[in-house]
Amino acid sequence: MSHTAELIAVGTEILLGNIANTDAQMLSEGLSALGINVFYHTVVGDNPQRLLEALAIARKRADIIITTGGLGPTYDDLTKQTICQAFGRALELHPDILEGIRAFFEERLGRTMPPQNEQQAMLPVGCTIFDNPVGTAPGCAFEEGGVHVLMLPGPPHECRYMFENRAVPYLKKLSDGAIVSHELKIFGMGESQVESLLRERMIAMENPTLAPYAKMNECLLRATAKAETAEAAEAMLAPVIEQLRELLGDVVYGMDVPNIETVVLRDLLAKGLTLSTAESCTGGLIAKRLTDLPGASKAFLGGVVSYSNELKRAALQVPGELLDQKGPVSQEVALAMVKGCRALTGSDLAVAVTGVAGPDKDERGNEVGTIYIALASPQGALCRPLPHTGRKERNVLRHRAANFALDMVRRWLEGLL
Amino acid sequence: MSHTAELIAVGTEILLGNIANTDAQMLSEGLSALGINVFYHTVVGDNPQRLLEALAIARKRADIIITTGGLGPTYDDLTKQTICQAFGRALELHPDILEGIRAFFEERLGRTMPPQNEQQAMLPVGCTIFDNPVGTAPGCAFEEGGVHVLMLPGPPHECRYMFENRAVPYLKKLSDGAIVSHELKIFGMGESQVESLLRERMIAMENPTLAPYAKMNECLLRATAKAETAEAAEAMLAPVIEQLRELLGDVVYGMDVPNIETVVLRDLLAKGLTLSTAESCTGGLIAKRLTDLPGASKAFLGGVVSYSNELKRAALQVPGELLDQKGPVSQEVALAMVKGCRALTGSDLAVAVTGVAGPDKDERGNEVGTIYIALASPQGALCRPLPHTGRKERNVLRHRAANFALDMVRRWLEGLL
Repeated sequence: MSHTAELIAVGTEILLGNIANTDAQMLSEGLSALGINVFYHTVVGDNPQRLLEALAIARKRADIIITTGGLGPTYDDLTKQTICQAFGRALELHPDILEGIRAFFEERLGRTMPPQNEQQAMLPVGCTIFDNPVGTAPGCAFEEGGVHVLMLPGPPHECRYMFENRAVPYLKKLSDGAIVSHELKIFGMGESQVESLLRERMIAMENPTLAPYAKMNECLLRATAKAETAEAAEAMLAPVIEQLRELLGDVVYGMDVPNIETVVLRDLLAKGLTLSTAESCTGGLIAKRLTDLPGASKAFLGGVVSYSNELKRAALQVPGELLDQKGPVSQEVALAMVKGCRALTGSDLAVAVTGVAGPDKDERGNEVGTIYIALASPQGALCRPLPHTGRKERNVLRHRAANFALDMVRRWLEGLL
Repeated sequence: MSHTAELIAVGTEILLGNIANTDAQMLSEGLSALGINVFYHTVVGDNPQRLLEALAIARKRADIIITTGGLGPTYDDLTKQTICQAFGRALELHPDILEGIRAFFEERLGRTMPPQNEQQAMLPVGCTIFDNPVGTAPGCAFEEGGVHVLMLPGPPHECRYMFENRAVPYLKKLSDGAIVSHELKIFGMGESQVESLLRERMIAMENPTLAPYAKMNECLLRATAKAETAEAAEAMLAPVIEQLRELLGDVVYGMDVPNIETVVLRDLLAKGLTLSTAESCTGGLIAKRLTDLPGASKAFLGGVVSYSNELKRAALQVPGELLDQKGPVSQEVALAMVKGCRALTGSDLAVAVTGVAGPDKDERGNEVGTIYIALASPQGALCRPLPHTGRKERNVLRHRAANFALDMVRRWLEGLL
């Protein structure tokens, strides 16, 4: 039986544009991986009457309602009370949950629980409790008249934890069998190209299903199987994944990984190698993305943001005459930068980027999007131009140049370059 | 008369979690600044029946409906057709708009317009046309039975342009007078502190109104005035803004500016000074944020991401014995980094960050969140510890340390340090 979910975010701060409803994106992606349809998102303010109306509409068109937000301790946190009113349930105090909130305050936040947090331990009679080890607001779920209502906290890191560790197990029990999905992450082949490559052979498959998605400068392919058990679903997926990997080749940079920098760091650590960066037009973006990852310091040594010619000379030993003759945006300078970076940092590998991110051409007339990326290893150095795609926006170009540089490192580490 | 808007985003890619509904955030912020209430956001897929239902609900509870998305040239772009069905209007071809789309393809994209793009020139009879110079999909607006329906394209940069330049003028005509708002951007004072500082004197004001908002590691205060003309509204705002600036002091880093790096770059350019960065725990984030801005190269020279001790020595000339004695996370090393950075790059100003961004303490037992930020100028160098707030998440700490560093530069440039 197939389920339909509706997401209701509760929070005036979303309606004021103070924050984006990123919880809805995370939940939608997760529900899609579970094979649950999502037909509507709704956002409503901290207003009980309007939330009642949204609930009345949602229960007519969905059999799973997931709310986010409004579980906090203040007077305008009204999600539980309003849902109980809509579904005719009472709230009751759970002493063990109260104890947990008290302990969270004392151990994690180093202070005494304020009295108003007691209401966070009030939960609907007969619900499944979702205890929350990453915040103070527990979530919960109940079923009423064929509709499952799940309540999750609003702060994104709490919402994600509670969805993955509490809501997903609850939702999996609602389906007859098991649903397993895997994501192949792809850089260097667009969504439409992936789609046309797969259309004939595989896109019509019913179980497992395949769906490609475009992401910022990359794409992903999700394969989902339904079976009686997770093991059986995995067994159905294995040959499909193998076939996809064969078909797509080395543009697949990983499976079930969040991004390419994670793969680069993992591969560096596995091989015991170090990396450094010399960035002109990406201006620190590659270093920033690598150091977003906890533990990056074990393999990433840092580098130089050589935004000026002077710094290319002083820190990276790029010869002045090379800069004069070839210009800073050139294969030759990219190669000199990457060699200089490796010499400066003593890293095993180094990567360098120089180019024109726009909005204007450089003074030598290089077009926006002219970008060179070089990689140095103990075996030597090589340089590649960033392939053109027609996109000229500064942030898109910078992000794609960073992806390309990280992918060059991955390819070298995996013997693909 | 006060208006109520409902946002309807049309796009299966949002329901699949492929993208977040960031258009809704941008529009909500803009509508709020216009004094228009937003009580609901709805997201619906590329499905005419469900869009019809969403429109039927929205027209009962809002007098302004703004749709985003579904104006493209493919078979699943159905927003205009479905809205015309719901509101009983016909579509008609606008030859001049068609000519514009053709020209956009030829001049901007360098290719011939595909035939299916012709449907983008079909617009509701009698509508106000929103021509689109940044994409191929024009938007439009009409009024039917007291409800204004505005259609905007979905891609975020098009949506923003079309809202600011087409929808805002349309919406301003709906209100009796003029609404003007200004935003004071604040770093170094939290939302609750701002609120309690203002509560007694100003928070109860009715015109102009004041509203504080928390953003990632900073906050903003929006002052909005309604009057018969924009000039009259400005005249009402001027003394309020002056009073707020006096009350809040130098934590206000700017008015109507997107972020602190924009202010730093503007101030550097105004004074003809250059800046460089030496980043440990922020790992390139400051450089990345500065180089997000077009034209950054006129004042930002680059710098060093000195993630390893070795690179602190080699590139920044931090003495080895200092690193041994005091450890890399210390005021002394921050000062040595910033001086070394200025010497290396030859910049007028330099800023350095070293600290523990987590998730774990460093090997010397420094707690997560122990971060030092130093600034060097021709007059010397100084160092400040990042104040603790209790937040320990790696991305929050890194972002706040970058804000703090940029704010130190701003303060120096504005004679406040």
